[in-house]
Amino acid sequence: MGAPVAIVMGSQSDWPTMTKAAAVLEELGVQYDARIVSAHRTPDRLHSFGKGAADEGFKVIIAGAGGAAHLPGMIAALTHLPVLGVPVQSKALSGMDSLLSIVQMPAGVPTGTLAIGDAGATNAGIFAASILALEDEALAERLKAFRQAQTDKVAEKPVDNP
Amino acid sequence: MGAPVAIVMGSQSDWPTMTKAAAVLEELGVQYDARIVSAHRTPDRLHSFGKGAADEGFKVIIAGAGGAAHLPGMIAALTHLPVLGVPVQSKALSGMDSLLSIVQMPAGVPTGTLAIGDAGATNAGIFAASILALEDEALAERLKAFRQAQTDKVAEKPVDNP
Amino acid sequence: MGAPVAIVMGSQSDWPTMTKAAAVLEELGVQYDARIVSAHRTPDRLHSFGKGAADEGFKVIIAGAGGAAHLPGMIAALTHLPVLGVPVQSKALSGMDSLLSIVQMPAGVPTGTLAIGDAGATNAGIFAASILALEDEALAERLKAFRQAQTDKVAEKPVDNP
Amino acid sequence: MGAPVAIVMGSQSDWPTMTKAAAVLEELGVQYDARIVSAHRTPDRLHSFGKGAADEGFKVIIAGAGGAAHLPGMIAALTHLPVLGVPVQSKALSGMDSLLSIVQMPAGVPTGTLAIGDAGATNAGIFAASILALEDEALAERLKAFRQAQTDKVAEKPVDNP
Amino acid sequence: MGAPVAIVMGSQSDWPTMTKAAAVLEELGVQYDARIVSAHRTPDRLHSFGKGAADEGFKVIIAGAGGAAHLPGMIAALTHLPVLGVPVQSKALSGMDSLLSIVQMPAGVPTGTLAIGDAGATNAGIFAASILALEDEALAERLKAFRQAQTDKVAEKPVDNP
Amino acid sequence: MGAPVAIVMGSQSDWPTMTKAAAVLEELGVQYDARIVSAHRTPDRLHSFGKGAADEGFKVIIAGAGGAAHLPGMIAALTHLPVLGVPVQSKALSGMDSLLSIVQMPAGVPTGTLAIGDAGATNAGIFAASILALEDEALAERLKAFRQAQTDKVAEKPVDNP
Amino acid sequence: MGAPVAIVMGSQSDWPTMTKAAAVLEELGVQYDARIVSAHRTPDRLHSFGKGAADEGFKVIIAGAGGAAHLPGMIAALTHLPVLGVPVQSKALSGMDSLLSIVQMPAGVPTGTLAIGDAGATNAGIFAASILALEDEALAERLKAFRQAQTDKVAEKPVDNP
Amino acid sequence: MGAPVAIVMGSQSDWPTMTKAAAVLEELGVQYDARIVSAHRTPDRLHSFGKGAADEGFKVIIAGAGGAAHLPGMIAALTHLPVLGVPVQSKALSGMDSLLSIVQMPAGVPTGTLAIGDAGATNAGIFAASILALEDEALAERLKAFRQAQTDKVAEKPVDNP
Repeated sequence: MGAPVAIVMGSQSDWPTMTKAAAVLEELGVQYDARIVSAHRTPDRLHSFGKGAADEGFKVIIAGAGGAAHLPGMIAALTHLPVLGVPVQSKALSGMDSLLSIVQMPAGVPTGTLAIGDAGATNAGIFAASILALEDEALAERLKAFRQAQTDKVAEKPVDNP
Repeated sequence: MGAPVAIVMGSQSDWPTMTKAAAVLEELGVQYDARIVSAHRTPDRLHSFGKGAADEGFKVIIAGAGGAAHLPGMIAALTHLPVLGVPVQSKALSGMDSLLSIVQMPAGVPTGTLAIGDAGATNAGIFAASILALEDEALAERLKAFRQAQTDKVAEKPVDNP
Repeated sequence: MGAPVAIVMGSQSDWPTMTKAAAVLEELGVQYDARIVSAHRTPDRLHSFGKGAADEGFKVIIAGAGGAAHLPGMIAALTHLPVLGVPVQSKALSGMDSLLSIVQMPAGVPTGTLAIGDAGATNAGIFAASILALEDEALAERLKAFRQAQTDKVAEKPVDNP
Repeated sequence: MGAPVAIVMGSQSDWPTMTKAAAVLEELGVQYDARIVSAHRTPDRLHSFGKGAADEGFKVIIAGAGGAAHLPGMIAALTHLPVLGVPVQSKALSGMDSLLSIVQMPAGVPTGTLAIGDAGATNAGIFAASILALEDEALAERLKAFRQAQTDKVAEKPVDNP
Repeated sequence: MGAPVAIVMGSQSDWPTMTKAAAVLEELGVQYDARIVSAHRTPDRLHSFGKGAADEGFKVIIAGAGGAAHLPGMIAALTHLPVLGVPVQSKALSGMDSLLSIVQMPAGVPTGTLAIGDAGATNAGIFAASILALEDEALAERLKAFRQAQTDKVAEKPVDNP
Repeated sequence: MGAPVAIVMGSQSDWPTMTKAAAVLEELGVQYDARIVSAHRTPDRLHSFGKGAADEGFKVIIAGAGGAAHLPGMIAALTHLPVLGVPVQSKALSGMDSLLSIVQMPAGVPTGTLAIGDAGATNAGIFAASILALEDEALAERLKAFRQAQTDKVAEKPVDNP
Repeated sequence: MGAPVAIVMGSQSDWPTMTKAAAVLEELGVQYDARIVSAHRTPDRLHSFGKGAADEGFKVIIAGAGGAAHLPGMIAALTHLPVLGVPVQSKALSGMDSLLSIVQMPAGVPTGTLAIGDAGATNAGIFAASILALEDEALAERLKAFRQAQTDKVAEKPVDNP
Repeated sequence: MGAPVAIVMGSQSDWPTMTKAAAVLEELGVQYDARIVSAHRTPDRLHSFGKGAADEGFKVIIAGAGGAAHLPGMIAALTHLPVLGVPVQSKALSGMDSLLSIVQMPAGVPTGTLAIGDAGATNAGIFAASILALEDEALAERLKAFRQAQTDKVAEKPVDNP
């Protein structure tokens, strides 16, 4: 069976951000398939990807895009699977355009939106894992261990030259 | 032959805004076809509308939407016709989300964006007419007359109870 | 067994918004438990709710709050379950403060954020259902039917007096 | 006969942005005439340019400016030709001032506004071509080929070192 | 000789705001001439007004406009007289568009910008008077008295039902 | 007895900012204890720190965080001590998210918020000292001397190469 | 001896907001003195108030103002006492101008800023009490009881018609 | 007699911006006096400067400040002379805080505000000259020549390597 998570992005230039989602999924032992699907330059690919995502075996879709970021919302329009949106930081408006384009969806077609940029991509990976962990006890344990390790790594006191 | 201008909108609730585009086109003697095409609720209708717009005989498309307003940009992705975007004023963010979702398109797929709300809808109609007038001398004359009348209506002095 | 979805909100005053999440869950046949958990006025309740949410049997948590909206992020800090955040529209800043307070989480602790206000609450309900539907075929069918009905209700043409 | 597209800008410093419009017009085989017309420093030049643009043979005008960007709107006030506005990215406010100054035109005098910065300039060129292509079959074919090539260039998968 | 202050505005609809400038000038005994000069609908009137303002005997120009507010800056481009700009509160963006369109002028052509809306209009009147008072001792005394009266009217303590 | 001021921050990465609070407290002769308390990664530490802060002998708490900055408000929810919030400058949104997340607290649970970034951290230290100085005459004198020295250091005239 | 808290505001029109600070101080049994001190219309009153505040016996100053809100920062410049700033909601910009004008103080002169509007005024009162409670055991007990009562009042479940 | 223009700024760090005002005044042959007057660190200097400005012989005051920029408005509160405000670009918020703190003055006490940063400083100098030129024919001629030279310097066409 195929990977349960699709990581799609509007352009090769989004990969340095979206690779953070891939990295955390690898760390959590979750398989993913990373693809470029441009809402604007490859609308047919978008249409067939969105329509076929469930049949491909995907359970969660992570979609990242910047500026007038239509990818997450358009995929959400084409599938009933949960779609997570990552606003990629844009040049002029620092991702505020990306954020609003992704999060302000009308009632009926949701995207679950994460933070702008790298943190959002990492968190999209963790969020996808938290969904899959609902029916995967081993993943749930790995996720809890990941979260605990993260907690344990927080030092008690700040230092001047870390 | 069909109407040269399509006025499409994401929802019935956008019509009070988009009717302003219709009104000015009527005033200028330009035929239009008004339709609801929801990028999010009717993605198939969007796909077929965008792909078929040129074959339907449309020359200019006016698309209005609010919030995470994906309609203008997605139509622009599906046709090489000029697409004019009207950011409908949204409830929470007053149309700033609509504006950024429409105007901040990536290089390669343009939308010509007008002002937020009624003024933008009116202007989309005028802009569409200005495009069609390039090859329609009679329309060009009507457009010039419309503009001249608009100029002539500006009073010299403000009055307290207009 | 208990309801799979918790709808928590910072205050009674958030209920007119969050009731939209409840309504759509009812429509989709998903049980929920609605509670007031104020991050600021009842921090102990927050702490015990977050820590115990998984043991209570919840699978997805929908949290709504306005202004300096800390509830979704703090619950996300206390559980590994997926947490959906709804930015309630605030008085002075129209929910922009709520949105940024919820969505801009640091890497490691995600919230899946929906739109500001009613649309976001409705969509949180749909998103929660889309998660649960991954392992509930009957719910998946109801969700698809809900989405299809939503599509079918979109008229072809706008009308002046709907 | 002269070039069908005028590219005007408020200052020499806008050229690194506006040259993107020129480049794509060249790629599409559309002739253009690039000029500096400062609304603020050369208002007479603005006035005569706007009034004479149609008589010069221009069909579409692309105008770029930054900050309190009055050039596109003022040209639109002086001609009935379609005017495309490009908000040049400004130093302090990253082009948000340019965008609002260009797009928020009152009912009656439209500018079709593109994205802030380079992407907007490129798209202004494409949009101008899409207008001219309405009555120029060969250009329409070149435009479709350009769009298709753009689609074809989108890789299926992201790579780490592109 | 004519009035030393011109109050110009883009539209009759700006008069409820700009009348505040007129009122305070009347209170200070400064003559003014109020006119509608639309940058976008009457660009010729704008051009001749700006070019002829000094010859008409005006010493200070107060210009109010909303949205893509080009009037103050374009008048400033056409005259060396001091031009005061009043950002009229706009519908969708509450005057933030008006403010940025007026204040963010490029080096070389200044507008002195006042607050958004009524307060800004009142203050434009006071500012104009402060300029004229530099060479009009009687006006300077009236201005000082006006300011003193304003100070004297500030109660020591707030009251519940003023 | 312990230090009267706690400086807490969400992450080691906030220390370059928060060290400015430490520096000014040292200059004013006020003892402090600097700790990392992550609202999101160490919610238990947060809970016990907030609940125990008064018993530890702290009188004022300075809390710095960035992005969805929940630390100051959550500590304020857990203690009746005065809590000062420092919005750390964030990457994408320059601290506007941090500021709104900290300052927009609901009625009932206050944070006293300082400026974004270094200036805010310095000022949090001064503000904490001004609170403690209410009952510490010697500190009050040191604070007045600090303020006087700051005043004395302001040169009369700017110089080109300071 | 006089009241320990001064509530000052720029105008009578700020009282409906600032009365919330007064109300909570009364509830907590803290005396206050409410005054109008306009930074702009009564700069001498401002100067003497700020300079004399400590000698009048005030320990904490709550200052509310809207728009270009200079009152809190200017009082902070004139006294070493802790100054709490309340951004009053303004008409055009909803208090975003008030907030930035109050909170963005330069290093050296702090204001502790609360939320925009009524919530901020209430919280300024609570914050002032939390400062005074550091050396007033009875007030500390009243403050804790106030906070506990606030916690106790939070219902477990939302109701449709509260 | 003394210089007719005062250039005041809140800090030595504002001089690189405000020197642009000085430069253009020198170019126009207008004398000025540049001083540091910190509203927050030297409130007494501010008070005596503002009150004495007219008696010192100043006719126009240019005041630049950043962040919570209170200097222009507070000087305007202390004198009936025209005060021009220059919002210095701030670190976190790029001068948006400076702009709103300066421009949003309440009715009764105006500041004439220029653009953020260098352009605003240059324009403050030109605006000051335009005021003084009302009663100084020679200066009016120099100002017109300056403006004409500025116009003449605008090239007809952009070049790739200027």
